[in-house]
Amino acid sequence: MRRDFMDFYSKNTLAMEHSFIREILKVTKGVKGVISFAGGLPNPDTFPREIISEIFNEVIINEGSDVLQYGASEGDRQLIKAIKTFESVENIGDDELIITNGSTNGIYNYTRSMIDQDDIIITEAPGFPGSIAAMEACGAKLSGIDMDELGMIPELLDKELNALLGKKKPVKFIYLIPEFQNPSGRTMSLQRRRDIIKIAKKYDIPILEDQPYRELRYSGERIITLWELARTEFNDPEIVTICKSFSKILGPGLRLGFSSGAPSIIGQMVKWSQKSIVSPDCVTQRVAAHFIDRGYMHEHINRIIELYRPKRDAMLDALEQYMPDGVKWTKPEGGMFIWLMFDKAVDTDVLFDKAIENKIAFIPGSKFYSANNKKRNEVRLNFSYPTIDEIKKGVEILASLI
Amino acid sequence: MRRDFMDFYSKNTLAMEHSFIREILKVTKGVKGVISFAGGLPNPDTFPREIISEIFNEVIINEGSDVLQYGASEGDRQLIKAIKTFESVENIGDDELIITNGSTNGIYNYTRSMIDQDDIIITEAPGFPGSIAAMEACGAKLSGIDMDELGMIPELLDKELNALLGKKKPVKFIYLIPEFQNPSGRTMSLQRRRDIIKIAKKYDIPILEDQPYRELRYSGERIITLWELARTEFNDPEIVTICKSFSKILGPGLRLGFSSGAPSIIGQMVKWSQKSIVSPDCVTQRVAAHFIDRGYMHEHINRIIELYRPKRDAMLDALEQYMPDGVKWTKPEGGMFIWLMFDKAVDTDVLFDKAIENKIAFIPGSKFYSANNKKRNEVRLNFSYPTIDEIKKGVEILASLI
Repeated sequence: MRRDFMDFYSKNTLAMEHSFIREILKVTKGVKGVISFAGGLPNPDTFPREIISEIFNEVIINEGSDVLQYGASEGDRQLIKAIKTFESVENIGDDELIITNGSTNGIYNYTRSMIDQDDIIITEAPGFPGSIAAMEACGAKLSGIDMDELGMIPELLDKELNALLGKKKPVKFIYLIPEFQNPSGRTMSLQRRRDIIKIAKKYDIPILEDQPYRELRYSGERIITLWELARTEFNDPEIVTICKSFSKILGPGLRLGFSSGAPSIIGQMVKWSQKSIVSPDCVTQRVAAHFIDRGYMHEHINRIIELYRPKRDAMLDALEQYMPDGVKWTKPEGGMFIWLMFDKAVDTDVLFDKAIENKIAFIPGSKFYSANNKKRNEVRLNFSYPTIDEIKKGVEILASLI
Repeated sequence: MRRDFMDFYSKNTLAMEHSFIREILKVTKGVKGVISFAGGLPNPDTFPREIISEIFNEVIINEGSDVLQYGASEGDRQLIKAIKTFESVENIGDDELIITNGSTNGIYNYTRSMIDQDDIIITEAPGFPGSIAAMEACGAKLSGIDMDELGMIPELLDKELNALLGKKKPVKFIYLIPEFQNPSGRTMSLQRRRDIIKIAKKYDIPILEDQPYRELRYSGERIITLWELARTEFNDPEIVTICKSFSKILGPGLRLGFSSGAPSIIGQMVKWSQKSIVSPDCVTQRVAAHFIDRGYMHEHINRIIELYRPKRDAMLDALEQYMPDGVKWTKPEGGMFIWLMFDKAVDTDVLFDKAIENKIAFIPGSKFYSANNKKRNEVRLNFSYPTIDEIKKGVEILASLI
């Protein structure tokens, strides 16, 4: 008998779809001659191999009996301490921070802590499919709020919360990437952050702030996070939980991130971590702790910025040079993505097939919207992974296909 | 306002309890003068620090652009290949194996793939609280089947399945640790394994076989796993999924394990891994691959066995020497635990308090049963972590308290 086990799988398991982005990456990654703007991969040239290989060696020899043993589900104490110093938040309690297996793991554990079947999460539209897939897997229904150049539009958020809560719908949290958003590259202004927090407080709905790209700012002024803003200006250290990642700094293969928020919420996330993974890799956590302690972080981040800034500039220049009139795009101050907006007549799902034939890969905008609210005239372009020559050539070819 | 967010947490989150074992470990770990038989920790002397520190160094320098990048959710291809060779199962497909963040992560993802709220899992009684907690967190109801010296009693399993399925109850799988079981130290005989598989096939209920200690056999003959038995003798490669761990061999801090089973089930587990952690640590996976490829594994396992065997023997000898008449215990052929069975009048929850006063820690047997089926006259003793002197002295003191 060949079993398919369909009678055994849980409803949430059966509802999960395969990731379109993963499928594209499988087809295009490392394929000769393909210029890929599709991925969200850091450039391997940014990985600090020499330094961390030495620290790995040293940590295992000197601290092996500690770090090769079971570690706390809340994370390595030394890494927690190092992060607090690096983030200049020495005043937060140890119970307000958890180390996660990459920031996806933080988003999953936060969602798992909150969501019963069909509970609602408010997201940006367009939004990041990786998080959306994790949330939907937990049984959440998503309500996407349209963005303008400054991020999620507060009036629409207010209206939607008012409508949903008026109907007693179980809205559990608001999920945001306020800086260099994936996919749009947009950054939320300080005033917009205040407005969003005010609305969250008005309806008493917590915010999950995802900040994977925050350190990668190539121009403009750094803006206070919603998490810090809530703690300071609003004197509310509990309404915002933040997720950050070392993936874009040390390398995503290390699977390290952290979340910080109210002790009650972090406590629930620790419980889920204990049940599902016990803890992130303890050796890697200690290595990251020493990398920070020894002062490598700032210089290393500056090196990444100097590598990515010319790539962003090259893509913006190429778009300016080659794209026909009427095409618009975002001018991100950091991160990895530029968002292209075509005339409504352009269907980028169709454009995708044409581009692949011409050995150019990107992610069609439709993949960043939920089924009931799809726009089809947009495109996400990644600029961190391709070379500057590939960026110029790729944008020229793409423009010729429109 | 101080929020407790109780209105926001999911039902499964609110139902999770704190782990008693974790609490005991916090109180007793590293406390001066306490002899602890409570934990399930490998002895740090078993961690192959010199070898893996070198491999870490080399992997990051030579393969860093690959292993520091995002990796597949199914796991590192090189580690999958190495495991197949080590386990002598080169014939299984790549879609029949997933690398997990420790075996807990495999058990969690398998459970998550199968369980809707209140679905039923059959477990051993006594059973391993770490797995039970992960399963209950996913909303499962557990039905514990009593064991004898050879493991889960087939007649009782048959009767329970017959009763539950007769009432159309959603029984999703049978969970077993057939070798050196945690907590009892018992090993299922070959005939018993056949009997259990026959019953699983009769009712068409899949088995999850947890094998964290399999390599740690100190005496007796190695027995074929249920997974391999089903594949070969029963010509059914799908009914059993196996979880194994590197935690007791390379060190639990590395968070590495794997699961193997039907492609359909492994495929679902990959989806959950993608949503919740993306992948285990990719650097660590490659290091484990090279550790196996270079032939270090067998010799290393032999060294661990030579370290643990005298500890097991010392504990068995001390029990023989000091325990009063009427006390019984298991004689495990491997693993980390011995199970003590007292006269029914002895309440080991009470004995626990007396032991702690005398600086001896263990886990009372009641912690390994579900609420409705608790036995209170048993004790789990760990022998892998304490020294031989501590084992002798600790058992002597414990015996004096009965």
